[in-house]
Amino acid sequence: MRLHSLDLKEIRIRDSFWTKHVDLVRNVIIPYQWEAMNDRIPDAESSHCLENFRIAAGRTQGKFYGAVFQDTDVAKWLEAVGFSLACYPDEKLEKTADEVIDLIAEAQQEDGYINTYFTIEKPEARWSDLCEGHELYTAGHLMEAAVAYCQGTGKRKFLDCMCRFADLLCETFGAEDGKIHGYPGHEEVEIGLIKLWRATGREKYLNLAKYFVDARGVGENYFLAEMRRPGYKLIFPEFADYTPEYSQSHLPVRRQTTAEGHAVRAVYLYCAMADLAEAYHDEELLRACETLWENITQKRMYITGSIGSSGILERFTTDYDLPNEYNYSESCASIGLALFGLRMNQITRDAKYIDVVERALYNTVLAGVALDGKSFFYVNPLEVWPPACMDGTSKKHVKPVRQKWFGVACCPPNIARTLASLGQYIYGADEERKALYVNLFISNESKIPLGDACVQVKLETEFPLKNYVSLKLDAVPKDGMEVYLRMPDYARNFAVYVDERLCETKAERGYVCVKTRRDCGICVQFDAPARFVYANPEVRADIGKVAIMRGPLVYCLEETDNGENLSGILIDTTEELEEERSELFGGVMVVKAKGRRIAGTHEGESLYSGQKPKLEETSLTAVPYPYWGNRGKGEMLVWIRELHMI
Amino acid sequence: MRLHSLDLKEIRIRDSFWTKHVDLVRNVIIPYQWEAMNDRIPDAESSHCLENFRIAAGRTQGKFYGAVFQDTDVAKWLEAVGFSLACYPDEKLEKTADEVIDLIAEAQQEDGYINTYFTIEKPEARWSDLCEGHELYTAGHLMEAAVAYCQGTGKRKFLDCMCRFADLLCETFGAEDGKIHGYPGHEEVEIGLIKLWRATGREKYLNLAKYFVDARGVGENYFLAEMRRPGYKLIFPEFADYTPEYSQSHLPVRRQTTAEGHAVRAVYLYCAMADLAEAYHDEELLRACETLWENITQKRMYITGSIGSSGILERFTTDYDLPNEYNYSESCASIGLALFGLRMNQITRDAKYIDVVERALYNTVLAGVALDGKSFFYVNPLEVWPPACMDGTSKKHVKPVRQKWFGVACCPPNIARTLASLGQYIYGADEERKALYVNLFISNESKIPLGDACVQVKLETEFPLKNYVSLKLDAVPKDGMEVYLRMPDYARNFAVYVDERLCETKAERGYVCVKTRRDCGICVQFDAPARFVYANPEVRADIGKVAIMRGPLVYCLEETDNGENLSGILIDTTEELEEERSELFGGVMVVKAKGRRIAGTHEGESLYSGQKPKLEETSLTAVPYPYWGNRGKGEMLVWIRELHMI
Repeated sequence: MRLHSLDLKEIRIRDSFWTKHVDLVRNVIIPYQWEAMNDRIPDAESSHCLENFRIAAGRTQGKFYGAVFQDTDVAKWLEAVGFSLACYPDEKLEKTADEVIDLIAEAQQEDGYINTYFTIEKPEARWSDLCEGHELYTAGHLMEAAVAYCQGTGKRKFLDCMCRFADLLCETFGAEDGKIHGYPGHEEVEIGLIKLWRATGREKYLNLAKYFVDARGVGENYFLAEMRRPGYKLIFPEFADYTPEYSQSHLPVRRQTTAEGHAVRAVYLYCAMADLAEAYHDEELLRACETLWENITQKRMYITGSIGSSGILERFTTDYDLPNEYNYSESCASIGLALFGLRMNQITRDAKYIDVVERALYNTVLAGVALDGKSFFYVNPLEVWPPACMDGTSKKHVKPVRQKWFGVACCPPNIARTLASLGQYIYGADEERKALYVNLFISNESKIPLGDACVQVKLETEFPLKNYVSLKLDAVPKDGMEVYLRMPDYARNFAVYVDERLCETKAERGYVCVKTRRDCGICVQFDAPARFVYANPEVRADIGKVAIMRGPLVYCLEETDNGENLSGILIDTTEELEEERSELFGGVMVVKAKGRRIAGTHEGESLYSGQKPKLEETSLTAVPYPYWGNRGKGEMLVWIRELHMI
Repeated sequence: MRLHSLDLKEIRIRDSFWTKHVDLVRNVIIPYQWEAMNDRIPDAESSHCLENFRIAAGRTQGKFYGAVFQDTDVAKWLEAVGFSLACYPDEKLEKTADEVIDLIAEAQQEDGYINTYFTIEKPEARWSDLCEGHELYTAGHLMEAAVAYCQGTGKRKFLDCMCRFADLLCETFGAEDGKIHGYPGHEEVEIGLIKLWRATGREKYLNLAKYFVDARGVGENYFLAEMRRPGYKLIFPEFADYTPEYSQSHLPVRRQTTAEGHAVRAVYLYCAMADLAEAYHDEELLRACETLWENITQKRMYITGSIGSSGILERFTTDYDLPNEYNYSESCASIGLALFGLRMNQITRDAKYIDVVERALYNTVLAGVALDGKSFFYVNPLEVWPPACMDGTSKKHVKPVRQKWFGVACCPPNIARTLASLGQYIYGADEERKALYVNLFISNESKIPLGDACVQVKLETEFPLKNYVSLKLDAVPKDGMEVYLRMPDYARNFAVYVDERLCETKAERGYVCVKTRRDCGICVQFDAPARFVYANPEVRADIGKVAIMRGPLVYCLEETDNGENLSGILIDTTEELEEERSELFGGVMVVKAKGRRIAGTHEGESLYSGQKPKLEETSLTAVPYPYWGNRGKGEMLVWIRELHMI
């Protein structure tokens, strides 16, 4: 039996660290994206995604505009709205969303099909380009949105729409004769179908998800065969040299042992694999998930919890290949990694997965959005020298400042739906065994159904500023409950007090278990001072360098604090790091360090010489990585050269 | 009055360092390329370039195959053959070449036009795509070949052909009404026209070259206007976001102060600018050349004399942006840089240009071809970790081993023609003032016309193995001559002896001048021990690192000598470098150094931890960069981490 996330209706986050970000969703991002979807943001790339639906619905005439998966912007917006309404009812927003859902329903075809690109541009070409047509990907996001909207508002119209579409998919795809024996080029529909199964109980949706996952990479590659068909035309010219690894279709999924190809596609697939492993008690599939997880997190993941080392094709490359200044590290990929890790934690009850989920959420996902919620990163480098981030070069994908919106706008709404559903990550609940797993230290008040009881939990903390967490439990079931407190991998001197009495803190799979039969107060405290972190020396890009972390937060140097040419700074790891409260970014701990730096600028001096550069003493100020780039354009650096190698 | 290169007929190279490479041209590369052009190399990409000419000539039926500039493979082959025949008459080869020239003449259209792509595929579309059609580029290489072939064999047929084509260009392009006011997207025809002018004395060819150079970047951009014309179709989809910088057409050339865009195009343009500056005594144009030269060599050039920091679009990026493992650094671009430097030296008589020419020739150009002459590098990284050089990633252009041949085969024949014409780089002659400039230390015997005398020169050296050069002059003009001996930038204790008598060695513009009125022997000796070289600290990629050089040769570490994970090696610059004779690569000096390395492999250990890697003592062996990759696939590294930063 897996752990469950809480219903978002039952959790209210009021947190000194997260609230300012989470509140952006309903106060800024949802309204802003609404403007973007209506093409009302000056100087931003056009979206046209609502207009596409109006055209497909026959309300207006016109041509489709945008990426083939433009519909997903609407889907992710509605999903974020669904999550938001669950926590914060908003009549006006709900009315707007209802109208969008009416529009989607109108754009739905007789047989249940929804996709504005194919409906408007190529009605005859449905399902002819599973490789890159993104129909199933789009369907999946709409399904996820429909489930979230139903859960947030109780309204079923959208869900019913999507069930009709899912019914069509069940008739269209599968192993049976007469059905298409294909699977999506960009995984996502599997997740959507599984959520639809959970929301409706209709097994056929789960079975179709299983079909898609199990058919993948078996026998002749579906996409290569598709491309050989007469009349096949590439949507994206960069896929001329298509290889099945790109879409994780190079091997049956159970035989895949390394994370390959497009990073977002990969982790969305792994999410579905984890869901299916649990739903079907499929140990083999679970082992495959564990192997892929280990490969990512032990060999192919940045310290910031980001993935996808190659700017070209946004993909995984090879073990330990983690370049810092021309990586892709898409915000969406870190979201997918967090979703995968959450599922693995819910299945295995091992806190090691949450260590990574936390790393991804606190660093890359949060870096993806500006503090004002109005600009976004797609790509999350660990080292930026703005003049070199030029269009038409090897770093064309790296933007030194967040962008207002994107023509292909997958990341902003994905970040929005993630922040809006942050409550799902905090706890894992086992109703049957009356166990509550506390995963993230985020202040909240929640009502948690455990068996026939409904426990009231109040979690208070100033984490990550302070490593002290208080948990107040009321209405504890009379026959008792278990509280599993996550001991993060970076925590030292982890101590647990129940009603002010120190408890034993032997952790199993990263959790310290407290059993209680009565309402009580639990306090957790631990040390997590700023620390130096080294990469495995197989990571060639990071040799001779250190990073600074404090709790789950990666720190970085910014030009605004440390002057230009951050690469010329050498940090002295024999000196203690100092923590200092700062009002920056709404209140954070900055970290001070000592070191040397190359003296002066050398502009105009000879390019190569026998002259060893002179060093001068310097003090360094490091700030949390998620907040970089909020103070104008400048250099940024995570991995800092170390002064003393011996 | 500019200095002149020697007629290749009058110089015979017999050099301990270069002969083994130069001889490859006639013994291996010319025959190998002949097989390639005839599509007889198993497992190599198809060329079809001779077949294209046969189709265009009407000898056979068929479709054009290859890049739009496929004709240039034939051109560069013929140019190399022309150079080779000048030094080494070969009846059979000459007959084959004559037959190719007959074929070209047959493929020439009534009005003089030659280009198999447009003739076969798009006869109506001539000159409609100056941006990327490469017609003028192809014309330029054919012109250069025709001049070389005429000089090498005395036969004029090819030259006459190309004059007819050049006549057509003169009728077609120019400022006059009714002519096309355009210029080539890829510069090269300017060089060809100027060579044709020198070979024939026909001023109009020079004038057309001047028109092309002066029209560039003036007023509305020609290429952007071209792309807006109805029916314009991109040949290369990657040019969808075309910017004029790519083809150096963003500004009038005289106002360009930084090297921009595609590196080969840029340096070919600068060659023509230098030629024109000299031909027209155009000081303003010469200043522009000097500014661009300084920008390249002081801010945008690798230590190996290579240029083009971006793998995407093979282009310059920005000052001091010199990444080592995903750069382009095309072999052809270093050839172009050498050609530009040679011209600047001939105009200014400043040896600083030869320092760069030598750097490019000894390192990147030579690295471009395997020791057996059968495989080639397009791209010349300074750091290679083979597992990360994957197709479909940010390093897709970086090949860890030389390739047999290329579909777009610009580099191999370009290297061949450069090696075949190496004699052009050794001396600069001023016939009028009876001065001889000795630029490169390459053993040879030459006859050098100075006024009405013909001086016989015998240069003997084992450079770069030994820094001792003996120059024997016979038949010195009775009224005397001047010998200018280049003092390389890396030379220390530079001493000159005339008939064993020590002379004063005050250098001007990098040359020590010896005047003599009689036959004599001149000896040059200097110290150039292996040394550590630092990059300007504005080059962020090289901070904390050193390179090893010895004379003009850059050294590198290879995995075969130093084990894997070269990035984990820290060199101790407080210890002396040691030189050691080795029989490797036909006899070289290897360089030994001391340092530390990260102990053991860490495969499977945790990706991030507080554990500082342990170091162990190690000895290093560095080999000359031009020879890397001749002993199988493995890691390679030029810039080595320094152990002691203070």
